Parts: sequence; structure tokens; C-alpha cells
Amino acid sequence: MWVCGALCRTRAPAQLGQRLLPESRRRRPASASFSASAEPSRVRALVYGHHGDPAKVVELKNLELAAVGGSDVHVKMLAAPINPSDINMIQGNYGLLPQLPAVGGNEGVGQVVAVGSGVTGVKPGDWVIPANPGLGTWRTEAVFGEEELITVPSDIPLQSAATLGVNPCTAYRMLVDFERLRPGDSIIQNASNSGVGQAVIQIAAARGLRTINVLRDRPDLQKLTDRLKNLGANHVVTEEELRKPEMKSFFKDVPQPRLALNCVGKSSTELLRHLAPGGTMVTYGGMAKQPVIASVSQLIFKDLKLRGFWLSQWKKDHSPDQFKELILTLCDLIRRGQLTAPACSEVPLQDYLCALEASTQPFVSSKQILTM
Amino acid sequence: MWVCGALCRTRAPAQLGQRLLPESRRRRPASASFSASAEPSRVRALVYGHHGDPAKVVELKNLELAAVGGSDVHVKMLAAPINPSDINMIQGNYGLLPQLPAVGGNEGVGQVVAVGSGVTGVKPGDWVIPANPGLGTWRTEAVFGEEELITVPSDIPLQSAATLGVNPCTAYRMLVDFERLRPGDSIIQNASNSGVGQAVIQIAAARGLRTINVLRDRPDLQKLTDRLKNLGANHVVTEEELRKPEMKSFFKDVPQPRLALNCVGKSSTELLRHLAPGGTMVTYGGMAKQPVIASVSQLIFKDLKLRGFWLSQWKKDHSPDQFKELILTLCDLIRRGQLTAPACSEVPLQDYLCALEASTQPFVSSKQILTM
Repeated sequence: MWVCGALCRTRAPAQLGQRLLPESRRRRPASASFSASAEPSRVRALVYGHHGDPAKVVELKNLELAAVGGSDVHVKMLAAPINPSDINMIQGNYGLLPQLPAVGGNEGVGQVVAVGSGVTGVKPGDWVIPANPGLGTWRTEAVFGEEELITVPSDIPLQSAATLGVNPCTAYRMLVDFERLRPGDSIIQNASNSGVGQAVIQIAAARGLRTINVLRDRPDLQKLTDRLKNLGANHVVTEEELRKPEMKSFFKDVPQPRLALNCVGKSSTELLRHLAPGGTMVTYGGMAKQPVIASVSQLIFKDLKLRGFWLSQWKKDHSPDQFKELILTLCDLIRRGQLTAPACSEVPLQDYLCALEASTQPFVSSKQILTM
Repeated sequence: MWVCGALCRTRAPAQLGQRLLPESRRRRPASASFSASAEPSRVRALVYGHHGDPAKVVELKNLELAAVGGSDVHVKMLAAPINPSDINMIQGNYGLLPQLPAVGGNEGVGQVVAVGSGVTGVKPGDWVIPANPGLGTWRTEAVFGEEELITVPSDIPLQSAATLGVNPCTAYRMLVDFERLRPGDSIIQNASNSGVGQAVIQIAAARGLRTINVLRDRPDLQKLTDRLKNLGANHVVTEEELRKPEMKSFFKDVPQPRLALNCVGKSSTELLRHLAPGGTMVTYGGMAKQPVIASVSQLIFKDLKLRGFWLSQWKKDHSPDQFKELILTLCDLIRRGQLTAPACSEVPLQDYLCALEASTQPFVSSKQILTM
């Protein structure tokens, strides 16, 4: 139930966003824990009432905190990133859309302030992250249901905790679930500088896999190449280089990848071309808004497999305990120094417009993280 | 060893076709069992010395039969079809190309005339079909190695035996190996009137699966629709109908297919659109020479899987006994009347030009079978 006074008046009765979704994917409003009030509010949140350009539809609003019921958890948000999927969700281009109006943000870390009498798994002081997308993390405080949260160890860096629940999880599952890779095997990916891309480089390196990382040509290419290599990237090539015949000699020294990870669309043609026979290309995003194109002979004679990955679907298909296990596996990598947060720019919540703009610009190499 | 006199003189030293293939896919010449002779030959064969338009490069030649060695089998060919893959192989557009010159044809049935002293699994009178592609079946007689042949029961119709080893095998494997389908589930396919398409209809019906069969619009549509329904097709729709919004109501009564079989390319977009979430599209041919295009959201949010199937690869990955088991399973269906040969036009070997032409025309609804 969405009950904050000012926003209720602007809610579209038809809840347009929901029409795009099958019944099973609808969920209750992201901010069900707010109560109506005409009083001045102490909670600030980034709210959108309809889909569109984030810079135009997102507004900083004051909301009042709901009372903490028996199974509720009062959380003070600490930091929340702006991910491409957050932007797509606001634009209405996502496989899961919340009822509107909604608080933006699907990821982030908060600290528990207080818990209801029936809460057993979380206590004040704990760090928590969303169990599922659609929670609305771009706000200073909230009251959530216990089942909407999972705890994370508070001995990892704040930026790592804030960016743990989506991109590293996606990277890990794609590296593990599609091809049985062994140390020494190679994988190829585009969008290598994205949050997922950086996590792929690090998790692959920790597992002894070689990464071939494709980047669009850009002004700061050398600097970025150095940074990715510092993370553990074995090879960094531009899209242009990938198209050249010289790549043939490259693959004399490097085993042809059995797994390709695609988040761009455009350069997926080249990823497919360099995949080993029987290999799999997993698409997890579509930054260039272009479809994936495979030749008939690649499918038939080369036996290439085209798949997609969506962490939300993975969570639906797996138990909360399996998700918690995944989080703990990643925390182990963080503690061992094998997985760091992507390069981040921390931006105070009230400067959200700058952060939204920066996160939709091409070639911005750092993730925008809202701090509360 | 390719040793027939006239052809040896025209063999290109570089064996161009082989350059396109990885070492593992190269095989010995399709007609290794012929011996050189300047005498008039009693074996007639359809031979091509270079790749190109089949009507231009294929010639009827006289060859002499080799002596029958210890592990050899002398076979009199009875009937051999012209399949799309035969045409592609002659054109040079196939994943497996024989050394040139080569005898055309990859499928067919012959009767054993005599066997070498070391042959144990085949005896005179048996019917045999090729164990692998590239045998060169468009000829009146040949001496093959025992391992190049497998026996088939001779109590099935000749046309069924001649067309058993490629299309029904492809249809069966695609229906069984990609999605776990249960009676009542539906599948969708294009090129429904092809050899594979007709086998899919019948094998699916025998397994209690509902088929949605897509055809290009054509002059004799009603007649063809009736014929496919007689084979067991549940639904026949044209490509144009498939694109219409009315198809939504169609899927109120028919379960969305979890498996799509694509041999066209062009209408694969519509197949993907109608697939159930999590479903698989298997591409096994590319009649329209167009790539397969999938949207990023179909891959990610709908979790569609794009795969390919090539029977030659399946055979490489499985034992000869597994192939024999598959053949016997199909023979059981034939004996029960659940699997018939596609509509065939029998054409004497010397009239091969008419048969080649007919087999490359659009909308020719019967398979050309060469008889010897």
C-alpha cells in the first residue's frame, strides 16, 4: 500500500507500468512502508511518478517514515549506486516495473536502526542490502519488511557492500552457470568497464580464467586499459581491433573462449566470431539497443549457443538461502582482496541530478553512488 | 584414395573445398572405392569436379567398380534423394565438404551384392544406408567399407529407407534433445513442408505433441494444408498470419510452444515472439540465407535460448550404436504407420538435371528421389 499524501494524489489510476508485466512479475509498491502525513517529513527520497528521462521525471521528495510493525526493520540507508538497470526501470524499458509512483534505486546498503518484535534474523547495527529488485534504495531511511532484506558482513568496504547485490552476483553466475570452465580457459566480454565487466575480470582472475576484454575506443583508452589490467584483465582490445584479421594470430597464443558475455549488442557479432565451437554467448544487457544477430552457420556448424541472463529471474528460480550463499562467497573474495568495488564517484543525495546525468553519459568510467 | 581414371586428371591439386574445413572434419574422398580403368565402365555416377550451381557442375560419368577387399561391401544403390544439404555441399556452402572430384548425394538406400571375407555385420541381400555424410550415393553401384554403412530392415517401404538417415533423424533429435516436452505440449516450426518438417509433424504426433506449422503463402496452400493435417499437423498458419495480432487469441486455446524449429531465418523472428518464456529455438537450416535475430529483451527477460542442430555433429558426438538405435526407433514408427516418407517424385538417374532443377525451385512440394 502506497500511502504518502502528496504522491497519492498524482498516482495514475491505471498504473501503466504494470500493464507491461505478467501477473507473476508484479510486486507491491516499492515504498509500502511509508505512512500518510501532512506533517513536514524527515525522510528524503528520489521519487518518480511516471516513466521517462530520469533527469526529468525523478524528484527529491520528503516522505514520512511508517511505524515499525512486528516484522518490520527500520533502515538508515548509507549508500546506493545508480546502475544501468535503475535507469532502464525509470525509463520503463525493463522486464520488471514497480507500481508508480515509486522510489528509484534497486541496490544499496543500509544500517539497521530498529526492528519489530517479530524480527529474528536482523538486529540494530547490522548492514543490510535488498533481497530483490524494486525496493527503492535512493532514500535516506525506510521501514522494510524483514523478508525484503538480507544481511551482509559489515567488515567489507562500504562501496563494496553498496554494489554487491547486482553486478558481482551477475558476473559470478554468468561465469559459473553456462559453461564448465577450468583454470587456463579464456572468456571474452564487451562493456568490460561496466560494473559487471569489472567484476567479471576480478572473479575470473580469482578462478584462474583468462579474460579478453573488449572496449570501445575512447580518449582515455590507455589509462582505462591500465586500470582493467590492474584489476586482473589479461587482454584488453578495442572493438576496432577485434574486427581486424590480426586477431587470428592473437588466438594462436590464447585459447579461443568458450564463454562470451555480451552487454552491448553491436559488438556481439565479433564475440560470436571468436567463440570456440560449442561455446555460449550470454547476453545480460543491451547498451547499444541493438539486437543479437547470429548467422545460421554459427548456430548449426559451430554449435554456438545464445542465452540470456537476468539476476532477478535467477533469484526467482533459487531460494533466498542460495542468494545469501552467493553473497557470502563474494564477501570472501572481497576480504581476500580479489574483488573490489568499481571505481565510484560518491554524490550526496541532493545532487542526484548531476549523478543521473553522469550515469547516462558515454565513457564515464566511474559508477555514481548516492550517499545519504 | 581417389583412383578413377578420367576424374583423377581433373582433380584440383589444392583441393579447395578442404581449405574451408578444420582438420578434424576432413575425410577421405567420397568415392575411395573405385579403381582406375581405361575400360568402358558399368557404374554410372553423378560427379562434380568443382563447387558451383549443381545443374552446371554435376555430370553423369562412367566409373569402374573396385575389387571387393576383405572389409569391403559391394552395394547396388536402389534409391537416393536430393536433399537441401546435398545442394549446399555441391555449392560449397556446407560445414563439411568432400575432396573433389566427388560423387554427389549423402543419403540413400542400397542392397548388398557381395561382401569381403572380413565382413561380419552385413550380408548379401541386406539393405544398407550411409553411416555418415559424404558417401556419394548418387550412383548405381559402389564398393564401400563396412564401417561406412549401417543396415536397415528391408520390411519398410523403399522411399522410407532412402530418406531415413537424415531428415527423420534430425527431426527426432530436435524434438527430444533440447526441451523436455510432455504430451499436450506444443511446438512451432517453419519450413513445415520440408523433409524435416514433415517428419517433425509425424514424430511429434506420435509423441502426443501439438504442432503449429508455419508455411509461406503459396498457390496450392489449401491442398498442402490438407496434406500436412493428414500427416498429423494440428495447426497450419502462414507467415503472414503469424505476424497478425489475431495470433494472441490463438494462444488462448493452444499452449505457447516451448520449442521452435527454424529452417528459414526470415520467419524466425515470429517463432521467437511466440515462444513460451524459457523456451528454445533450434536452427537446423537457413533456406532464406538470413541470420537469426533475437532482441536483447527476448534473451534476458524472456530467457529464450538459441541453439543449432547438425546431425553430422550429433553423429560425431555419439557412437555408431546410438545412431543404429535411433534408426531402429524410427523404423518402429514406420512399421506402425506413424512415419511415412515425404511426398516423393522418383526420377531415373539419367534424368538428374530435371531432378536437380526441381529440387532448387521454390514451392516444389515433393522430394526428388533418384532411382538406379
